[in-house]
Amino acid sequence: MQKADYIIRGDYVLPMDENQTVIKDGAVVVQGNKIADTGSFDEISKKYFSEKIVGGKNRAVLPGLINTHTHAAMVYFRGMADDLPLKEWLEEHIWPAESRWLSPEFVSDATELACLEMLKAGITTYNDMYFFEDASGRAAKKIGMRAVLGAGIVDFQTIAGKGAEDYLSKAERFIKDWKNDELIVPCIAPHSAYACGPETLKKVKELADKYNVPIHIHLSEAQWEVDDIEKKYGKRPAEYLHDLGFLDEKIVAVHCVWLNDKEIELLARHNVGVSHCIESNLKLSSGIAPVPQMLKSGIKVTFGTDGAASNNDLNILSEMSTAAKAHKAISNDPTVLDAKTALLMATRWSAEVLGLGNVTGSLEKGKAADCVILNLDKPHLTPLYDIYSHIVYSAMASDVETVFVNGKLVLDEGRLCTADEEAIISKAREWRKKIK
Amino acid sequence: MQKADYIIRGDYVLPMDENQTVIKDGAVVVQGNKIADTGSFDEISKKYFSEKIVGGKNRAVLPGLINTHTHAAMVYFRGMADDLPLKEWLEEHIWPAESRWLSPEFVSDATELACLEMLKAGITTYNDMYFFEDASGRAAKKIGMRAVLGAGIVDFQTIAGKGAEDYLSKAERFIKDWKNDELIVPCIAPHSAYACGPETLKKVKELADKYNVPIHIHLSEAQWEVDDIEKKYGKRPAEYLHDLGFLDEKIVAVHCVWLNDKEIELLARHNVGVSHCIESNLKLSSGIAPVPQMLKSGIKVTFGTDGAASNNDLNILSEMSTAAKAHKAISNDPTVLDAKTALLMATRWSAEVLGLGNVTGSLEKGKAADCVILNLDKPHLTPLYDIYSHIVYSAMASDVETVFVNGKLVLDEGRLCTADEEAIISKAREWRKKIK
Repeated sequence: MQKADYIIRGDYVLPMDENQTVIKDGAVVVQGNKIADTGSFDEISKKYFSEKIVGGKNRAVLPGLINTHTHAAMVYFRGMADDLPLKEWLEEHIWPAESRWLSPEFVSDATELACLEMLKAGITTYNDMYFFEDASGRAAKKIGMRAVLGAGIVDFQTIAGKGAEDYLSKAERFIKDWKNDELIVPCIAPHSAYACGPETLKKVKELADKYNVPIHIHLSEAQWEVDDIEKKYGKRPAEYLHDLGFLDEKIVAVHCVWLNDKEIELLARHNVGVSHCIESNLKLSSGIAPVPQMLKSGIKVTFGTDGAASNNDLNILSEMSTAAKAHKAISNDPTVLDAKTALLMATRWSAEVLGLGNVTGSLEKGKAADCVILNLDKPHLTPLYDIYSHIVYSAMASDVETVFVNGKLVLDEGRLCTADEEAIISKAREWRKKIK
Repeated sequence: MQKADYIIRGDYVLPMDENQTVIKDGAVVVQGNKIADTGSFDEISKKYFSEKIVGGKNRAVLPGLINTHTHAAMVYFRGMADDLPLKEWLEEHIWPAESRWLSPEFVSDATELACLEMLKAGITTYNDMYFFEDASGRAAKKIGMRAVLGAGIVDFQTIAGKGAEDYLSKAERFIKDWKNDELIVPCIAPHSAYACGPETLKKVKELADKYNVPIHIHLSEAQWEVDDIEKKYGKRPAEYLHDLGFLDEKIVAVHCVWLNDKEIELLARHNVGVSHCIESNLKLSSGIAPVPQMLKSGIKVTFGTDGAASNNDLNILSEMSTAAKAHKAISNDPTVLDAKTALLMATRWSAEVLGLGNVTGSLEKGKAADCVILNLDKPHLTPLYDIYSHIVYSAMASDVETVFVNGKLVLDEGRLCTADEEAIISKAREWRKKIK
């Protein structure tokens, strides 16, 4: 008998392995920060003992969900402006608020709130794009989340930098500082093909290749963006990035709403990962990404919440549900994006897209113990015929009971273990008073 | 000073009156089953005292939400079959399950679960269409919900009746039995223009006129339904119902996905109320109703969850959010269906559409005390710039803390006061074992 730090038990354990096995009355064994074993609770009980057996009856155990696109600190602008045309929303509300308020302190405080919200929604890893990512990294580590943090790059001056060279040198320094962290993966995040010229994008690519880090970029979110790039470079955005030599498996391309067949083929051929942000795309009227076609072509499509200023929450359970429903309607085919596929996209595939396929995204021996327990003992999850259906179509963030990140219990019975929730909320209210 | 049974206090009280006033640090006074007064907490404190002051800091107070279309008892089939073509879903899963299991006992037990789920999501009134509505009425009253219960009418035999005449006579008896109930409004529910012939629909109309009860009917949910009616009667469904003399303000027309301009004008002209079921329509690929056009023409559009077999929950907060987002994308206009309008649709307009405009749907003196307290002290509701935005785009069912129906406290700190939650869930699990 071996000693385990935790044995996590559930009526349903969904390892999200290659075969999407469902283990009835299953268990996950945690030793240190790793998963040591999985199997039926009976088998596991014969091999391991632990003082800490968590979960149990009417519980489901699944890998931590992954949010492949957000601007976490924008959570402080949640609901500041809604139901407005994109241009007015951005130019009259979001940009002025950012130029006025952005600072390492703002990013640190806001990121704590975002991490708290995400953990409570069963998200254990997120992929960020913003400025002052050092502050973001310290906040994420404090709360105990895994994060891929993209140092923002644009060609113009902002409150966070003077221009391309300045952002690039900050990004390189950021990558060096965080390269070997256990929870934080540094990343480089050129905003888009319209906010970064070809010279900047080439330098971004060199930097990413030099340090072998992911690249996080917005791609074809809005129709005007396609028009803009076509006018400037005579090609559509994905084609343009391809011809620059930019596309490879390190790229996380966000939105991908306005792609034609040729562009889909280019992304597929170069193993580009895609982050689909359905709720943000709907709310800002950006359009609806061709997800079924991307999936058919073999592209790993995953889910992102986008920033809470445009969504207005950081909740991958609701992204899965909204996406599964929206694409059925748009495709006129109710079999599209079934629940099992949606959960695969939000876990295993997301980890692979972020270059974390060996680290997280499934409950398999040797991976980090990033794990969520859902409480199924709720009216809206009763009766239960199919566990995938319940997770995707019926579960809410409030059903997330317990969360482990890297073997550490970070959310216990819905309460944060690593910091004071009330203090995080109070700080947000203090900022709110200043902001508007 | 007058004595109040309850004083309900909140940082934000949203009476949903004609002007959509927001009362900061407001209060609602409950005496018996009625609202005696509303105003700022300061003013109210000078006029009333109560031993029971509920709500308070970081709370929002709003009228109970209204679900204008469901088949409550189908909650027992939640997640039984998903991601399937409509025909296969209906003919191979839902209908066989219904013929095998439907009974007054099934409907009673399942309705208790549905009511529990709805109260926990802040819904205080629902509009039902099913069979064995006596059982449904007893269950709703036991749990303490307000309900408009539509006795189902079809032209063919089912487990609940032999044919049109049988359903009609059952419906008349049902109406007589429940006509003066305080919480239950009996209603007549012809399934649709394709499941009820013109003779049946005429008799339905006569019955509704005789007893002055609402009519609850599916209308133009699917494209094939329009084709079917056009082939049979040479006109589109709304036109056909109009020419039968069927359309008036007593009609709640559900779905209304496939309407042309002329049909929209007909519904508007006759003050037909519409129940929009966006999540069900998306999930079953039925299409997307022309909601902005209906609103523009003056039609009162409201929200329905449809049955949990096709949704898969009974949650008007998420219907508001999904609808507001989906219509922005479809219209290519982010100003469409703003948060304020969405909440109006889910409260005041819904009550009016159900013929309950004098009874519920707003927090105004003389109306029944149907009232919800939301707990805003949550990470995903922080910071707060706009209360409407938070309710529509960020709030979850789990933020519903306290619910009053008809002056009675039915949900207290998220727990049901009127029956045993665990017993309701256990009963559902017992049925589940039998069903599949």
